[in-house]
Amino acid sequence: MTGKFPDTVINRLTLYHCILVDYIKNEVQTITSSAIASLLRIDDSQVRKDISLLKNTGKSRVGYDVLELKNSIERTLGFERPKNAFIVGAGNLGMALANYNNFTDYGLNVAALFDNDKNKIGKRVQNKEIYNISELPNLADKLNIEMAILTVPMQAAQKTVDFLVQSNIKYIWNFSPAVLVVPDDVMVWNENLMGNFLQFSYKIGK
Amino acid sequence: MTGKFPDTVINRLTLYHCILVDYIKNEVQTITSSAIASLLRIDDSQVRKDISLLKNTGKSRVGYDVLELKNSIERTLGFERPKNAFIVGAGNLGMALANYNNFTDYGLNVAALFDNDKNKIGKRVQNKEIYNISELPNLADKLNIEMAILTVPMQAAQKTVDFLVQSNIKYIWNFSPAVLVVPDDVMVWNENLMGNFLQFSYKIGK
Repeated sequence: MTGKFPDTVINRLTLYHCILVDYIKNEVQTITSSAIASLLRIDDSQVRKDISLLKNTGKSRVGYDVLELKNSIERTLGFERPKNAFIVGAGNLGMALANYNNFTDYGLNVAALFDNDKNKIGKRVQNKEIYNISELPNLADKLNIEMAILTVPMQAAQKTVDFLVQSNIKYIWNFSPAVLVVPDDVMVWNENLMGNFLQFSYKIGK
Repeated sequence: MTGKFPDTVINRLTLYHCILVDYIKNEVQTITSSAIASLLRIDDSQVRKDISLLKNTGKSRVGYDVLELKNSIERTLGFERPKNAFIVGAGNLGMALANYNNFTDYGLNVAALFDNDKNKIGKRVQNKEIYNISELPNLADKLNIEMAILTVPMQAAQKTVDFLVQSNIKYIWNFSPAVLVVPDDVMVWNENLMGNFLQFSYKIGK
């Protein structure tokens, strides 16, 4: 794939991927677009249109080959080149993400965690060590880290991001509810949990 | 407000809200649309268009009154009627969400947590008790619970959702990476963390 897909398509492709993983676990070998559509409550035509953008989807008269379609999505989304990341902030959220085994399946390799709490430093989660935040610049360089997953409290977010920027981290996945100020060559992806909740809440009605 | 806004507008409004909260903390009283636009790296015209959909925004020659604009967004998004929710699954993610103080500011009232782990049952997080999952139907009824925040492992997700549906929970905010099957009158909002990561990862490039 050379073209870029819109976010909405990427988001749906990851949901299809999730269903395919489930089918593989249950040893089902074929899946129809309408089965996917029905699980996600979207239009069959939408599913077919999305899948038509992919290559080698294993399409046959009876549907798609589950494994081939899964591989096709993975190739399209670029799972093959794993990205190395640090989790910055070893609180509950940081620990939850460190425990989230699925990341590895999706090409995200969490190399280590960082915190400034002496009670946490030196401990391990899922074979990943929690380091003192002061060691981050050296380790980022040594381990070829591209991304930081920011899970510090809101009050510490901007100060921590300034430190990450100085440490040459270019991509920040921000889980703190703070709008961060960064230089133009740094990309922030806001995991706006409250925004997500409010969209849901708004749908529920008042 | 009687009309319904698209998700993208709601999402941006919550980001504006986040900036306004920050301004209030720093005791700044006025904000311009271009200041918001620059923080979020979006077009000034977009910000002005979004705000023009709101009522009583405190607009003046020099900008918007921070407090009035914040209140206007809150009224529009329906923060006034708090929604009662349970967190189902008291692992790291459930605990992280229970500790996430911001929810209360946004009209989400987490009443209790549930788990099936005897070591967790009876403990408290942020003044919220962790109950045995078997007590959920009774407590949901008693506490007028509308929503469940699902933070159980993927393997337990569908079984747990079936139980929530039987317990008359109508709205499910799903943090597990599973596509859930529910009856038509139950609404699921998938917090597709991997999907979000992949959108980010895809933007970074291969």
